[in-house]
Amino acid sequence: MSTTTPASTDVQTAAMAELRQIVGPSGWSTDADILAIHATDWTGARFASTPLLLKPASAHEVSQIVGTCRAAGLKIVPQGGNTSLAGGSVPTGDGIEIVVNLSRMNRVREIDTFNDTMTVDAGCILSSLQEEAERVSRLFPLRLASQGSCQIGGNIATNAGGTNVVRYGNTRDLVLGLEVVLPDGRILSGLRGLRKDNTGYDLKQLFIGSEGTLGIITGAVLKLFPRPTAIGTAICALPDLASALDVLSLCKEKTGGQVTAFELMPRQGLELVFKHFPAQRFPLAKLHDWQLLIEFSSSEDEAYQQERIEAVLSEAFENGWIVDAAIATSIDQSRAFWGLREGLAQADMMEGALVSGDVSVPLSAVPDFIEQCSAEVLALIPEGRVVAFGHLGDGNIHYGLLQPEKMTAAEFLVHEPSVKEVIYRHALSAGGSTSAEHGLGSLKNEAVKTYRGDVDHDLMVAIKAAIDPHWMFNPGKVLKRDNA
Amino acid sequence: MSTTTPASTDVQTAAMAELRQIVGPSGWSTDADILAIHATDWTGARFASTPLLLKPASAHEVSQIVGTCRAAGLKIVPQGGNTSLAGGSVPTGDGIEIVVNLSRMNRVREIDTFNDTMTVDAGCILSSLQEEAERVSRLFPLRLASQGSCQIGGNIATNAGGTNVVRYGNTRDLVLGLEVVLPDGRILSGLRGLRKDNTGYDLKQLFIGSEGTLGIITGAVLKLFPRPTAIGTAICALPDLASALDVLSLCKEKTGGQVTAFELMPRQGLELVFKHFPAQRFPLAKLHDWQLLIEFSSSEDEAYQQERIEAVLSEAFENGWIVDAAIATSIDQSRAFWGLREGLAQADMMEGALVSGDVSVPLSAVPDFIEQCSAEVLALIPEGRVVAFGHLGDGNIHYGLLQPEKMTAAEFLVHEPSVKEVIYRHALSAGGSTSAEHGLGSLKNEAVKTYRGDVDHDLMVAIKAAIDPHWMFNPGKVLKRDNA
Repeated sequence: MSTTTPASTDVQTAAMAELRQIVGPSGWSTDADILAIHATDWTGARFASTPLLLKPASAHEVSQIVGTCRAAGLKIVPQGGNTSLAGGSVPTGDGIEIVVNLSRMNRVREIDTFNDTMTVDAGCILSSLQEEAERVSRLFPLRLASQGSCQIGGNIATNAGGTNVVRYGNTRDLVLGLEVVLPDGRILSGLRGLRKDNTGYDLKQLFIGSEGTLGIITGAVLKLFPRPTAIGTAICALPDLASALDVLSLCKEKTGGQVTAFELMPRQGLELVFKHFPAQRFPLAKLHDWQLLIEFSSSEDEAYQQERIEAVLSEAFENGWIVDAAIATSIDQSRAFWGLREGLAQADMMEGALVSGDVSVPLSAVPDFIEQCSAEVLALIPEGRVVAFGHLGDGNIHYGLLQPEKMTAAEFLVHEPSVKEVIYRHALSAGGSTSAEHGLGSLKNEAVKTYRGDVDHDLMVAIKAAIDPHWMFNPGKVLKRDNA
Repeated sequence: MSTTTPASTDVQTAAMAELRQIVGPSGWSTDADILAIHATDWTGARFASTPLLLKPASAHEVSQIVGTCRAAGLKIVPQGGNTSLAGGSVPTGDGIEIVVNLSRMNRVREIDTFNDTMTVDAGCILSSLQEEAERVSRLFPLRLASQGSCQIGGNIATNAGGTNVVRYGNTRDLVLGLEVVLPDGRILSGLRGLRKDNTGYDLKQLFIGSEGTLGIITGAVLKLFPRPTAIGTAICALPDLASALDVLSLCKEKTGGQVTAFELMPRQGLELVFKHFPAQRFPLAKLHDWQLLIEFSSSEDEAYQQERIEAVLSEAFENGWIVDAAIATSIDQSRAFWGLREGLAQADMMEGALVSGDVSVPLSAVPDFIEQCSAEVLALIPEGRVVAFGHLGDGNIHYGLLQPEKMTAAEFLVHEPSVKEVIYRHALSAGGSTSAEHGLGSLKNEAVKTYRGDVDHDLMVAIKAAIDPHWMFNPGKVLKRDNA
């Protein structure tokens, strides 16, 4: 892939000097090594270079940056923790792209425990916000693998999901207000912490999940929740995959929706965990084809909660929906249960090359999706190993195919496009999504046209053109301008 | 106000014949009495007339209607149950406006209890959907006064709130997918029931709360929730208004967010309830300046829940945050508690003319807002009677001023604009909203420009112009074209 930058005009060179002045001496870099880091995403992918990294310290500076870039025909790549898995936060080679990194805007502006809100800069690291909430006896429930380095602005721009969606929803559900710098340089000041507000179009919704293509998020008002005091974790073995749905319904019904995680763990995946992490222990007598990891959380007293979990699992057992179960009796044991779940992705990576799709389907369609998709990918690569695990509670299955033991990675990866085509086709025909969590970025910017269809595509392009007529913000992401 | 319709051209007359054909004999009316009903909203306001009422039976028919209207330069007023309180669902006199009423599209298309979703036509009556959910042991939590006649399409178009927002959010939070007919006549087919989907802009968000100005909603996928089995209701007396916030925080913390309603009831309001409904009984020894009605719901066993409510109220009492409390011990008693709350609005209306604002503020700002706003409105009308009650749990206070006993309604209503100005100004300076629940409709279509400011206004106009360039859908609502 090209990593060259188009030559800049005199006007653009002058503009870049102006940009450096806007952010001051500690707010920019042209150091080649630093620029390379900020032009390379989490997956190591690099598509193009940037001549200038800016780290503004305020929404006002971002606004000035946008004005200068606009006048000079420069493009802007908004960047948070740069943990995109879809090439969403790095230059792609469409014009001269200035990276505007929000990391210096990392202040918690206000915490209001009566309103249960937290007003924060976009550059705050997710884990630091979890800690801030904890400090005032509240929960900020967004939880994801990259939480130690991703920034809340990026989480909002990509509508991040994670492990607690079954209970608390995606990032979109956690945002009450946004401050956004628009492509015309004006600041949309929407940092309202209101639970009810129907004064015209809900503009913040446009920017949530738009991956920086419509505006640069500089601040947000986030919802806080009561911090659960009792957390219960169980591992259950299923007689078959379809029973998982009955177990979930029962758990939700009997606990009033206190299910905070509902994760699927397959035999094949766990066998790889035990192979690569031999210290891991399995709490049931034997491995079954399908296991669930279930977490409940509440403010009930622990004994009462434990009794309820036992009662619901007993009922599931009597109904024949589970065949074995273990409930964690200590925090250490709960961590060990989660260690199995977290080991699944790592063990896959250690085992070899993986072709996977970030798909979701309606929950009721999960068993058929896995069965039918597996039949077709295994017809394609008979000795491939299906790995299907993850957030069953919200229909978000990490579905992939691991390289056959008898193939090299390179031999296997030749089939990547055809395997992905099968995965996406089955997800779509089940009424699902071809990008459940990671967004489209630059790697999937054909997806809207291919999978969502012309009506969706044309409407998205109309919105993009109305708000960012010069396609200045995050070029090459979400939509392909060539298609517009 | 004018109730005349501009004369139609020959092209338009021909188009109206075509429209009647699209919907067939049982799908239209030109009967003057029927047209008058559909041109008059819930408040009795009537601004203009319509020459034709259409009741399409499918999204396809709606699409054809839009195509015909577009070609002939006719405007469309989408209409559900016509229960708008803001002049949002009736013609306003901007061109020739055809009312497209969705009531014939009233089918539940699918219920998926594993996915916890319900796919419905836009014309389904809200209460019928509550019953459908109940039938499959689920909860559809949207609850509002007009639920027996309002339609879900209208609820979605106005992002309706109601009494359960503190627990379940507004209508926006209850929608997973939408089917929408666009101003170009195409159908946006987004009836996906997915909990995670990040394939480009979340287009449905544009239409939720846009009051029919961007698209005609014809179908929706709605979220279902576990049905609570234990419901506890309490009335508490407060030492002062500020303590209400402490009580709410404590209730949320100690029950893990199981507060489903948190309503404020003032002395003055309850005195009017007892005056106009003498059969009503008050469960505490005496009336205090401020009372709370609190409802908890869960799937716990009833005895356990009752103990928890007693424990949390005891703690509030020990902390000096409440001075008296009664917990309902039967469903009848719970209904009686709610009767007091529901009587507040009715008693106000029976007592005389009321000038009120549909405002919300951050919860932490509620006490100061009420105090400061009251000082100023009472300086204006010294013998006016402040009524401030309602959904404190989401900062949505029904704040109004009741006519002084010594004034006639007419004398009092002369002051309506200045009283409203005070209410809105105080709501805004507290970081609040001038339309919490009812939307802008045609009565508040200056509000975006006046209260939200130019950046918000211009962005809304850009979106409107991009999606509905001829301002064909629901003219005169949300935005004033003259301002654009």
